[in-house]
Amino acid sequence: MDEMLKKLKYLFAPKSVAIVGGSPVPNKIGNVLMKNLIDGKFMGKIYAVNPKYTEVLGVPCFPRVTELPKAVDCVIIATPAETVPGILEDCGQKGVKGAIVLSGGFEEVGRNDLAQMMKDISKKYKLPVIGPNCLGIFNPYTRLDSIFLPMYKLQRPGPGGIAFITQSGAVGSTVVDLAAHYGMGVSKFISYGNGTVLTECDLLEFLENDKETSIVILYLEGVKDGRRLLEWMKKVNRKKPIVALKAGKFGKAMAAARSHTGNIAGNYMAYKAAFRQAKVTEADDLVELFDFVKIFDQPMPSGNRVGVITNGGGMGVLTADAINDQGMEIADFSNESKEAIKKILPSYGSVGNPLDLVADSGVESYKKAIDVMMNDQNIDSLAIVVLTQTLPIDERIIGVLSEANDLRKKPILTISVGGDYTEAYRRAFESKGVPSFNSPLSAIKALKRLTDYAAWRNKNSD
Amino acid sequence: MDEMLKKLKYLFAPKSVAIVGGSPVPNKIGNVLMKNLIDGKFMGKIYAVNPKYTEVLGVPCFPRVTELPKAVDCVIIATPAETVPGILEDCGQKGVKGAIVLSGGFEEVGRNDLAQMMKDISKKYKLPVIGPNCLGIFNPYTRLDSIFLPMYKLQRPGPGGIAFITQSGAVGSTVVDLAAHYGMGVSKFISYGNGTVLTECDLLEFLENDKETSIVILYLEGVKDGRRLLEWMKKVNRKKPIVALKAGKFGKAMAAARSHTGNIAGNYMAYKAAFRQAKVTEADDLVELFDFVKIFDQPMPSGNRVGVITNGGGMGVLTADAINDQGMEIADFSNESKEAIKKILPSYGSVGNPLDLVADSGVESYKKAIDVMMNDQNIDSLAIVVLTQTLPIDERIIGVLSEANDLRKKPILTISVGGDYTEAYRRAFESKGVPSFNSPLSAIKALKRLTDYAAWRNKNSD
Repeated sequence: MDEMLKKLKYLFAPKSVAIVGGSPVPNKIGNVLMKNLIDGKFMGKIYAVNPKYTEVLGVPCFPRVTELPKAVDCVIIATPAETVPGILEDCGQKGVKGAIVLSGGFEEVGRNDLAQMMKDISKKYKLPVIGPNCLGIFNPYTRLDSIFLPMYKLQRPGPGGIAFITQSGAVGSTVVDLAAHYGMGVSKFISYGNGTVLTECDLLEFLENDKETSIVILYLEGVKDGRRLLEWMKKVNRKKPIVALKAGKFGKAMAAARSHTGNIAGNYMAYKAAFRQAKVTEADDLVELFDFVKIFDQPMPSGNRVGVITNGGGMGVLTADAINDQGMEIADFSNESKEAIKKILPSYGSVGNPLDLVADSGVESYKKAIDVMMNDQNIDSLAIVVLTQTLPIDERIIGVLSEANDLRKKPILTISVGGDYTEAYRRAFESKGVPSFNSPLSAIKALKRLTDYAAWRNKNSD
Repeated sequence: MDEMLKKLKYLFAPKSVAIVGGSPVPNKIGNVLMKNLIDGKFMGKIYAVNPKYTEVLGVPCFPRVTELPKAVDCVIIATPAETVPGILEDCGQKGVKGAIVLSGGFEEVGRNDLAQMMKDISKKYKLPVIGPNCLGIFNPYTRLDSIFLPMYKLQRPGPGGIAFITQSGAVGSTVVDLAAHYGMGVSKFISYGNGTVLTECDLLEFLENDKETSIVILYLEGVKDGRRLLEWMKKVNRKKPIVALKAGKFGKAMAAARSHTGNIAGNYMAYKAAFRQAKVTEADDLVELFDFVKIFDQPMPSGNRVGVITNGGGMGVLTADAINDQGMEIADFSNESKEAIKKILPSYGSVGNPLDLVADSGVESYKKAIDVMMNDQNIDSLAIVVLTQTLPIDERIIGVLSEANDLRKKPILTISVGGDYTEAYRRAFESKGVPSFNSPLSAIKALKRLTDYAAWRNKNSD
């Protein structure tokens, strides 16, 4: 790892940060940024840089980066593109450790000259720069937050294992918002925009040994060095599963991607081949991306035989359809399991996979059925339909699922479909680390990806 | 339509209803049913039938159906299977107009004898019977409600145009719950279980001329008469779009479907062919089913050229990808439109489809851009990404979208991804009749189905 990349850690966990353009004027980006750091309880010292003020929102303000009382670890820049090279030069001279440039107006509008200046300054001072044309960094561990969207509009997730590298700020932020909504934990969110200085490859290299990161999401439009990307995907994916979404695949979508971050989207087939070669899990869509990430925190299954539990027959049938559709296997229970299951079911129930506990069954039946399947060597993973709308289901189901999940023995997932009441349960499941899906097909699609990844990693482990 | 089927209208809009097994004991099905009718403000008279009481929850109670003060329009039965034939015989003798049998324990557990008795009694008295082994009927117009799930667990939607015929109660109820969550209107929900007397074909026949119904959802596991189903799908789909989900497609899933409602699921390929022949829109999954239904209330597009508006570049790229993926066309703006759009965009914006209004743009820009696209003859439908997380977007966007939608000129849909804040907007959009999706791909998939259906209906209109 080169010297510039080593300094990247300061951008994620800076002891001090300065907002260039920090402002007391409501709804200005420089104001939202300051508020987000203050209200978000950023763990380091905050400064503003703005010649108009000596104090902003109770924080000391200085006219220029060079006039800060000392070199800060991180400078966040949200001023017009033309001013950025000068500010970066100031950062270099002052000995700042790294910069995040949120401002747009560079390659994506043809101002490659400004981009080149940025590169030159970065090289001269070995200054790591994220951006431009991005949302920058959010780190729930240190609460550094350069996402210039208000917290009431976009929730921030708590700390966890998911790192998110994204070229598009908008796409990235929506996924962050969703993660927060479901109580999922994030290690680092990095919206890197045009990737003028630091690219997805640098970020992958950095995350390879990042202790807080266990899963990596990659949203790409166009990259500069496909060969290097393949190399780093291979390296990282072996240790930490990567889930990738490539946008700007063909024709006009490709053109749109180019005008978005100034990067040529390139031949999608080449990306697809690279994903396959590195065994990176590819998502076709934002919802899939999010679905796949949910499940990659589960233990690795040893095969593709799924046990299904349901309290609604139709949902069991749909789950079985999904298992067929995805080329997975509906497990055959062992004889011991069959005997044990008979005791759980009411007299009119029938032993089968999907196991229909019927609508009359309560949390205790789930507990027993899960226990049986966890101990059945013929079952590699559990898909558990919970229709929360039936009378006997109450919040004890959260504890039962969470305990089964904490065993980390086999992957489990839940499927619950419905309105407000069900949604509250789904969030509770997710917050306990139990992946929850709103349809059988999306659940089994995700499980299939985990199973394929597990099989590959098992074969290719060092 | 035969005499029995004509009487079906009484089951949807009964002036009086009797609950056999009506009970004051909390959480008994007979109790939940009574509460749902009373709390749900059912518009007719309510009776209970139970030898143990003379009054239940303030409602008069009689020992037998034959002893009711007069013949009611609808009897709801939730007592053990063995008691059902006797009660139906009572209904026939009393001159009851129709019955809903919720109880399980018939064909699905091999009790074909009980099912046969049910058929015989129905035939003798020309008594329409829904069920058994189902959730029965919910009609938001009359507030007849035999869904024995408590209202706090499963929301009920308001009146609207969507009819839902479903073999599985669980699957059906989750979709009803979702419809309520999004403020979508339902005409009739019919969970018909084993379909012993009345089948999906009868229900389709009934809905063909039902004034309140404009769209039909069909969830099937196994049917008895495939040829008749095809006929009725053809007839109804010409007037009212049908969206169908076939469950129990192959192998073990097929077996699970059989043990669920006692109907043989049959060769999926035959269903697929029938759907294609009747041009019924097939969904692969519950989420798709719901997505497709959302959009079928839109005006029919005259072609497949989509105009895209976004306030986040990446989301525009993903939407363009989805349009390519689904074989639709990214529209070319007319020259007039291009000129008009230039005036909307900030100086650094670029005219293109997807039209990136950029994150700084507010509701006014959306209004203008929508207006331009609505009047552009090169554009058949509008996909509008609204990232509600950006600062300039506020609730006026709801009015702008709703006004555009009310023109009923071209189909429009919205794409918004995010957590609580975004979800509140999505619900507001939906409640105004503007379909809202949580991913570009699911939105465009649905739009493609609508476009295909429109093209077919245009060619095949009488």
